Amino acid sequence: MIRYPNGKLYEKKQSITPRKSENLTYSNRGMTLEDDLNETNLYYLEKGIAVIHKKPTPVQIVDVHYPRRSAAVIKEAYFKQSSTTDYNGVYRGKYIDFEAKETKNKTSFPLQNFHDHQIEHMKNVLEQGGICFVIISAFHKVYFIEARILFTFWKRKEDGGRKSMTIQELEENGHLISLGYQPRIDYIKVIDKLYFNQ
Amino acid sequence: MIRYPNGKLYEKKQSITPRKSENLTYSNRGMTLEDDLNETNLYYLEKGIAVIHKKPTPVQIVDVHYPRRSAAVIKEAYFKQSSTTDYNGVYRGKYIDFEAKETKNKTSFPLQNFHDHQIEHMKNVLEQGGICFVIISAFHKVYFIEARILFTFWKRKEDGGRKSMTIQELEENGHLISLGYQPRIDYIKVIDKLYFNQ
Repeated sequence: MIRYPNGKLYEKKQSITPRKSENLTYSNRGMTLEDDLNETNLYYLEKGIAVIHKKPTPVQIVDVHYPRRSAAVIKEAYFKQSSTTDYNGVYRGKYIDFEAKETKNKTSFPLQNFHDHQIEHMKNVLEQGGICFVIISAFHKVYFIEARILFTFWKRKEDGGRKSMTIQELEENGHLISLGYQPRIDYIKVIDKLYFNQ
Repeated sequence: MIRYPNGKLYEKKQSITPRKSENLTYSNRGMTLEDDLNETNLYYLEKGIAVIHKKPTPVQIVDVHYPRRSAAVIKEAYFKQSSTTDYNGVYRGKYIDFEAKETKNKTSFPLQNFHDHQIEHMKNVLEQGGICFVIISAFHKVYFIEARILFTFWKRKEDGGRKSMTIQELEENGHLISLGYQPRIDYIKVIDKLYFNQ
């Protein structure tokens, strides 16, 4: 039985996403990286540490029915590609922005997990002085990669080089995030170290 | 014919939202406050002034079909109440967060336009040092109200007082946003004045 810090019982919500389930890859606990990040963000919120939310999945709504005496029902809609990253919020007044990805690969992380719009968005965020990074779950570890570092590997791909980051490159260029019970994926610790000298 | 700063032709996108259309109220130009804010944010983005986006409408997806050879179709979904505000992003490294509302009322702005979760979210943002406000379109003007000011009127309502802000209260406690062609709703100007002493 799992309880939140406020004593409320944790009930796993069912969610349907356009991506294929990668539960078993990520942790063998039946939890996705997204689930764990949502719990981490809830922990940060309830402890007053940071206010960071996942954005809703963008959906193009085509047809809505309005039955009498009940809520509007969306009868036709499609998943849209996001033009930004999935997570953002505020920590110590600073703007925080990140994307999270997991891979089943055993030897490398494919960069095609990101798309051009997201890279463009990350560049815009850095230009505005925001803190921007990606969280990558791979090889049973979770890495924190600063956006400016990701860009160098993205550029290598754009220039015709390899289309992925190897394990060794992740190890050398990323920061391991400590995993735990609460918070599960303590990425704020890395932010403290990198951007607040703590 | 309207063109964006980059020369691209402006094509009005059709969007379906759970709210009733209030086009005529807002400006008699067939544009909603949301349309104008989206264009303003696009202008800020393309000029490198700020990176601020509207979050996607939150939707609870219940049933998805996966037809062969074509994209997944959402066949049943419902609009969800958001637990945050609609707009956020980064300006000069600072976290920016706001909600936008319009009213048809001629003498007051009803506070029930906001819900408890949003007020709670705004308080959390202020505690983390973010810049938080609401943009209210009323009486043919557009006002910028700082969240900390809104809270005093929200508290009056919670304490059993009036459930709206009068024209006079909006005039005295809000900052008029200058409206124009590009950007249409130049709220960054108010942010500069209030938070960057410019």
